Amino acid sequence: MSETFVVVGGDAAGMAAASKAKRDDPDLEIVVFEKGEWVSYGACGLPYYIKGEIQSLEDLVSVTPDAFREERDIDLRTGHEVVSVDPDERTVTAERVDGASTAGRDESAATAEHGDTVTQPYDHLLLATGAEATVPPIEGVGLEGVYTLGSMSDGKELREYVARAREEGELQQPDRGPACQFLEDCRGPVGVVGGGYIGVEMAEALAANDFEVHLFQRSDRLLPVFSEATSDEIATHLREQDVVVHLGSAVEALVAEDADGSGDDEVAAIVTADDRVSVDMALLGTGVRPRTALAEAAGIELGETGAIATDTYRETNVADVYAAGDCAEATHVVTGEPTYVPLALTANRHGRAIGQTVAGTPTEGGGVAGTAAIKAFEIEAARTGLIDHEEARAAGFDPVSKTITANSRAGYYPEGGEVTVTLTADRTTERVLGASLVSEYGEGAVHRSHAIVGAITEGTAVSNLENYDLAYAPPFNTTWDPILVAAKVLGGQL
Amino acid sequence: MSETFVVVGGDAAGMAAASKAKRDDPDLEIVVFEKGEWVSYGACGLPYYIKGEIQSLEDLVSVTPDAFREERDIDLRTGHEVVSVDPDERTVTAERVDGASTAGRDESAATAEHGDTVTQPYDHLLLATGAEATVPPIEGVGLEGVYTLGSMSDGKELREYVARAREEGELQQPDRGPACQFLEDCRGPVGVVGGGYIGVEMAEALAANDFEVHLFQRSDRLLPVFSEATSDEIATHLREQDVVVHLGSAVEALVAEDADGSGDDEVAAIVTADDRVSVDMALLGTGVRPRTALAEAAGIELGETGAIATDTYRETNVADVYAAGDCAEATHVVTGEPTYVPLALTANRHGRAIGQTVAGTPTEGGGVAGTAAIKAFEIEAARTGLIDHEEARAAGFDPVSKTITANSRAGYYPEGGEVTVTLTADRTTERVLGASLVSEYGEGAVHRSHAIVGAITEGTAVSNLENYDLAYAPPFNTTWDPILVAAKVLGGQL
Repeated sequence: MSETFVVVGGDAAGMAAASKAKRDDPDLEIVVFEKGEWVSYGACGLPYYIKGEIQSLEDLVSVTPDAFREERDIDLRTGHEVVSVDPDERTVTAERVDGASTAGRDESAATAEHGDTVTQPYDHLLLATGAEATVPPIEGVGLEGVYTLGSMSDGKELREYVARAREEGELQQPDRGPACQFLEDCRGPVGVVGGGYIGVEMAEALAANDFEVHLFQRSDRLLPVFSEATSDEIATHLREQDVVVHLGSAVEALVAEDADGSGDDEVAAIVTADDRVSVDMALLGTGVRPRTALAEAAGIELGETGAIATDTYRETNVADVYAAGDCAEATHVVTGEPTYVPLALTANRHGRAIGQTVAGTPTEGGGVAGTAAIKAFEIEAARTGLIDHEEARAAGFDPVSKTITANSRAGYYPEGGEVTVTLTADRTTERVLGASLVSEYGEGAVHRSHAIVGAITEGTAVSNLENYDLAYAPPFNTTWDPILVAAKVLGGQL
Repeated sequence: MSETFVVVGGDAAGMAAASKAKRDDPDLEIVVFEKGEWVSYGACGLPYYIKGEIQSLEDLVSVTPDAFREERDIDLRTGHEVVSVDPDERTVTAERVDGASTAGRDESAATAEHGDTVTQPYDHLLLATGAEATVPPIEGVGLEGVYTLGSMSDGKELREYVARAREEGELQQPDRGPACQFLEDCRGPVGVVGGGYIGVEMAEALAANDFEVHLFQRSDRLLPVFSEATSDEIATHLREQDVVVHLGSAVEALVAEDADGSGDDEVAAIVTADDRVSVDMALLGTGVRPRTALAEAAGIELGETGAIATDTYRETNVADVYAAGDCAEATHVVTGEPTYVPLALTANRHGRAIGQTVAGTPTEGGGVAGTAAIKAFEIEAARTGLIDHEEARAAGFDPVSKTITANSRAGYYPEGGEVTVTLTADRTTERVLGASLVSEYGEGAVHRSHAIVGAITEGTAVSNLENYDLAYAPPFNTTWDPILVAAKVLGGQL
């Protein structure tokens, strides 16, 4: 009798696992429960959808539910939320979400169904429940006009907000701010709370739609997981693009305008310790947290990061129950310790590895380097590995960093700009620990980080990185690529 | 008493060594002999100078002779050709080249000078004599209008040719070729012999100046050190840009037009086994060979490649005599064997390492991966490591390759194109051996190759490369960077 592989969650990790398992072992029965309508979507594209560069939410979907069902023979049940896992009985229980369609769903003979509740046995189970946008514990987050961006429907709402504002034309702003006063057709102002990936990408998406954008960041720099040099360059660039960047500005409350006693519940201002900025809209981009309630209730252990703990095969403490993607920990390639870095590639990679394991070929999905890339207007940046010295010391290293700026192409070449590289190594072993890179968009900070990912994954020393025979031609770098310049300068400090 | 470091040849390797040695040990006396007028120039920029994108030859010079003399305290003697090395006496003999200026040169007290001949003692000697363009052994290479591109003066002559042709306006071509007939202001035709780096870059430089360009390649594809997929894509693109690409066309002779019995000694046609193409100019881009005569005469050993053999410190068989740059061998990081890859980064890197060694800190300059990059019109390509199966088998590997084409950015992102990656590995050890990548210009084939350079330098397996946590965001790649797609597909074959 064929085995059953049950997957909870139909995005990157879940669908990668389901697809790979079915491809490698067509006899496996694969059941995927997804509580929403969307599966296998690129949430990373949402800011570009809201910006207006992508016209349809469907464009973000890499494989449609019907294609999974019909072409890949996967029993995909959208609109089904798994409410419990019973590891002893090896079953999951799912409930139909109100209004969910059952069209196109195969009924499994093994499934016990009572009204809107389904009990599904499994031989192998993957929890790929993802993460959810956090909402900071401050007053006013429930007001109208306050958004998060964690899901496709969030993206849809934000796009609709932008479209409404555009339709309404130029709003009458009695207190048009500094960024807006030179623009003919300025909207907003709007506030973005949080200066991480979502905050910075959404600042671009909104500014591109002629909103006056205020970006509030609690700490004293944007994107704190990048190097200071990268953070500073991005903040400077955002300001050049007329985004009002408020650093060291913890938001204390979102408040409604109630001067007229109307009891209006629309957000009207963002309040910090020393400022009050009028806004028409507020977007909360203060991070995500793993969805772990289902796992916890089933006795599955979480790690210190708060995400689901797994071994190198992404198996949890409960036999045949795997966890991957934004709900789970991964192993850091530099520290060897569990870490929580909820990003798309890891979800895909670990999902695929689990699919392969379930289909009979035990496969480790590999570690993570905490690599990330971002575009901010006309700037690109990437980071990988350990950059923060406190974090590096906590992992037992003696970190030393150098920041250099070098030409992105031969100095005499007609095009080109600069790349700023912060490279971090361990003083004792001289091992490369991480890097942060920033350049004008198109000048290659992001793809150049590939060299560092190789170096830190392989655990190489700075002197080896310095000798990497990296590709050179005048349209692409100087003879010494900025990566090599950084290695040379940092090597000189060791 | 301070030691003397003598350098023969004032380009990348020589000046890198001289500068680094002086910086690390200011007491060293450094004497550099350079037979020409130019030092420390970026020969890689010559095609862009001829194309017209760079306005002055001086722009290609990274440090001027005066700056070396005055700011870096290096006794740089341009216009001096070293004619012999006496390893027993530890001296070199140099002759002043006719017409060379002696301005700005310091006379060294230790130097015996007789008329135009100087004998210079050394404690450490670097031979950085470079390479010269080869001239194929065929009839007509001595005709007027036949050029090579190996030196700054070659570049100057070619630029002057282009300028003359532009000034003369549209030439009357009774036999305007297919590429020219749609152009209003077409010049030439001109012939480029050889489809390597120089040939392809000069095809672009000439076509950009509205020449009808015929490119002749002996073998059946351009850039044979790249993968077939890369070669094919570049040939297709060159043809789209109206370059007439003649593959499998060994040039047998360059001939002068002599129908009128005028005894004209200007090149008028390029003759292959089955074709005769009228040309106004012919550029020979058939490769370079190391300049080794000086070393050979001094009893310094050459390697099997024909370049000067060295150890890992780039020291020759003669004590305290080093060789680096385009005249010397280097060690291949994949095979561990000597190889001859005359490119700019190696020259700089090895020169710098020798300077450091001479100044008291023995330093290995690292190996080479045979990495190279090229831009051809609106295409970019890079290659690194072992790609050719015959070459890989000769090095003891059992090679297997896969070629994939993947999106350069998220499919839904408004910009983007494709990257084609050929990845080669050893079937037995699964070690990554090399790769060739090609994409539209700006879509990142070249900088993405950095990941492969890391992988082959570290000797990693395909399954590790597949797990590299490469930077991802929609403006830069799909979740699986094309490098990872290639590793995934190739890994599936192992």
